[in-house]
Amino acid sequence: MLILIEVAAIIAFAVSGLIESVRHRMDVVGVFTVAFVAAFGGGTLRDVLLDRRPLFWVQHQEYVWLVMALTLIGPPLLGWMRHRWVDRLMQATDALGLGLFAVSGTALALAAEMPLIVAVLLGVVTGVFGGVLRDLLCNRIPVIFYDHRPYALCAFIGCWVFVGLDWLGLEDWQALMAGVGAATGSRLLAVGLDWRIPPWPRESSVD
Amino acid sequence: MLILIEVAAIIAFAVSGLIESVRHRMDVVGVFTVAFVAAFGGGTLRDVLLDRRPLFWVQHQEYVWLVMALTLIGPPLLGWMRHRWVDRLMQATDALGLGLFAVSGTALALAAEMPLIVAVLLGVVTGVFGGVLRDLLCNRIPVIFYDHRPYALCAFIGCWVFVGLDWLGLEDWQALMAGVGAATGSRLLAVGLDWRIPPWPRESSVD
Amino acid sequence: MLILIEVAAIIAFAVSGLIESVRHRMDVVGVFTVAFVAAFGGGTLRDVLLDRRPLFWVQHQEYVWLVMALTLIGPPLLGWMRHRWVDRLMQATDALGLGLFAVSGTALALAAEMPLIVAVLLGVVTGVFGGVLRDLLCNRIPVIFYDHRPYALCAFIGCWVFVGLDWLGLEDWQALMAGVGAATGSRLLAVGLDWRIPPWPRESSVD
Repeated sequence: MLILIEVAAIIAFAVSGLIESVRHRMDVVGVFTVAFVAAFGGGTLRDVLLDRRPLFWVQHQEYVWLVMALTLIGPPLLGWMRHRWVDRLMQATDALGLGLFAVSGTALALAAEMPLIVAVLLGVVTGVFGGVLRDLLCNRIPVIFYDHRPYALCAFIGCWVFVGLDWLGLEDWQALMAGVGAATGSRLLAVGLDWRIPPWPRESSVD
Repeated sequence: MLILIEVAAIIAFAVSGLIESVRHRMDVVGVFTVAFVAAFGGGTLRDVLLDRRPLFWVQHQEYVWLVMALTLIGPPLLGWMRHRWVDRLMQATDALGLGLFAVSGTALALAAEMPLIVAVLLGVVTGVFGGVLRDLLCNRIPVIFYDHRPYALCAFIGCWVFVGLDWLGLEDWQALMAGVGAATGSRLLAVGLDWRIPPWPRESSVD
Repeated sequence: MLILIEVAAIIAFAVSGLIESVRHRMDVVGVFTVAFVAAFGGGTLRDVLLDRRPLFWVQHQEYVWLVMALTLIGPPLLGWMRHRWVDRLMQATDALGLGLFAVSGTALALAAEMPLIVAVLLGVVTGVFGGVLRDLLCNRIPVIFYDHRPYALCAFIGCWVFVGLDWLGLEDWQALMAGVGAATGSRLLAVGLDWRIPPWPRESSVD
C-alpha cells in the first residue's frame, strides 16, 4: 500500500517536471533531467544535508528506470493529461506525495537525532525542494516562493502534527498517518477552496 | 562578544535575503527560504564540501528560530530599514560578518587538513555563497559576479592574512583577529571610497 | 599521457566558463567562479552524491592554481581563441574531456558499489554537470537541455560501453579506453555531421 502511494507520488512529481521541461521545448536530455530532479531532488538534498547514504534512488534503482520510461512515453501524452479528470487525479496524488515525502523526511531526520525544528524543516525540504530545483533548472523563480498558495505550509503543518503526536507517545505508524493526513488534507482543502496566503508586508515597501 | 558579532552578522545576511525576496513579491515561504539561504547557505556549502557534520544551523537551532522571527517581523520594517542610519549600520555589520564567516571558514578548513589554497577558497565560499545562492533563488546572476565592487576579494585578502600569520606562528586568536580585521577593513574602505574592480578584459572581445 | 589529457580537458572546460562569464560582462570574481565550476562542478557533484572525499580539486590543488592562472591570462585571449583552428582544437579537447570524465566517473561509482544504472548516470553527471552549473550561475537554462545536439547522450553511450565491456571481463584499462573512445568518437561525429536529436514530442502539446 505504502509502496503504491510512493510510486504514484514519484510519477506525479516526475510528470510535473515533464510538463515544465516540455513547455520550455527541451530535448530528451533536459526532459529526463528535470523530471528526475523534480522526483528525487528533495530527498537527495535532505540526504546530503543529513550525510545519509545510500540515497533513496540508489537504493531503489527501479524508480530511476521508472522516470526513464516516463521520459520516453510521457511527453506525447501530456496534452491528454492536462484535460479531463487526469488533472484532478494528479493534484490529489501530488498532495498525497507531498504529505508522504514530508512526514517520512521528518521521521528520517528525527531518527538521525536532529532537533525538532531542523527535522521539520528537512521534512518540508523533502516534500517541496524537488519542485524548487525543477524550477531553477528551468530558469524560473521557484513557483512555491511567490504563488501565495499554501503548499510548503501544508507540509510544515503535517510535519508538526507528526512530531507532536510522536512526542505525545503515539505509535510511529499512527503519528505518521496523522501527519500525512494533515498535510494532504490541508493541501486538498487549500486547492479546493482556493485559499491564498495574504501578502506580506501588506503593501510593498521596497522597490 | 564573538557571539554578539555572529548574531549581528546572521541578521545582516538574513535581512539581505528579506530585501531581495520582498522585492520579488514572494510570499512568506519564499521570504523565509531566501533569508535562510542567505544567512546559512555559505557555511552549509562549506560543510557539505568538507563532509563536516552537524551543520552550523543544526548545532545552533536558536539561529533557525531567529530567521523565522525575522521573517515574521522583518518585512513591514524594510522601508524604514532602507532609509536613515540603519542602512549604514547594516553595511558595517555585513562587512564584519563577511570577515568573521570567511576567516572562521578558513580556520575550519585548515583544521580539516585542507591545502592552503583550498582552505582560503572555502573561507571565501563561507563568506559569500549565501549571497550567491540567494540571488540564484531569485533568478538573478549573483550580484558579486558582475558589480565590479570588491566583496569576495576582501574575504580573499582576509583569509590570506589569517593563513599567513598562522603560518608565521602567531596564536590562533591573534591571526583570526588580524584576518577578520583585514577583510572587514578592506571592505569598509572599498565601500567608503567607492573602489571598483577594473573591467577584465579591457574591452569585451566576445559577443 | 592520461594526465596530459586531463589537463587539456580541464582547460577546455574552464575556457567554456571563461567565454560564458566574459560574455555576461562579469568581473574577475565571477569569471574565476564560473570557470572553476565549469571545470570541477560535475566531479564535485558526483563526489558529494557518492560521499567521497577528498574532492578531486582538493587532491590536485595544482588544478586550482591552473584555473586561477587561466582567469588572469585567459580573457584577453578569448577573441583570438574563437577564430582560427583554436576553436576546433577546443571542441576536440572538450569531446575528449567529456569521454574521459564520464567514463572515469562511472568507474569510480562502480568502485563504490553503485548499481549499473546509477553508475552510468553519475558518469554522465561527471561529464556534463560542470556545464549545467556554469549555465545556472549565468542565469540561463542549461544549454545541453534544449540545444538538441547529442552531448550528454554521447557520454551516456560511452559509459554503457565501458560498463558492458567491464561486465564481459575485459581488463579495466581496455574497457576504459573503449568507453572513452565511444563517447569522444560519437561526440566528434555528432559535431562533424551536425546531428540533431529529434524533437520530443513531435509537436508541442503543452503551452
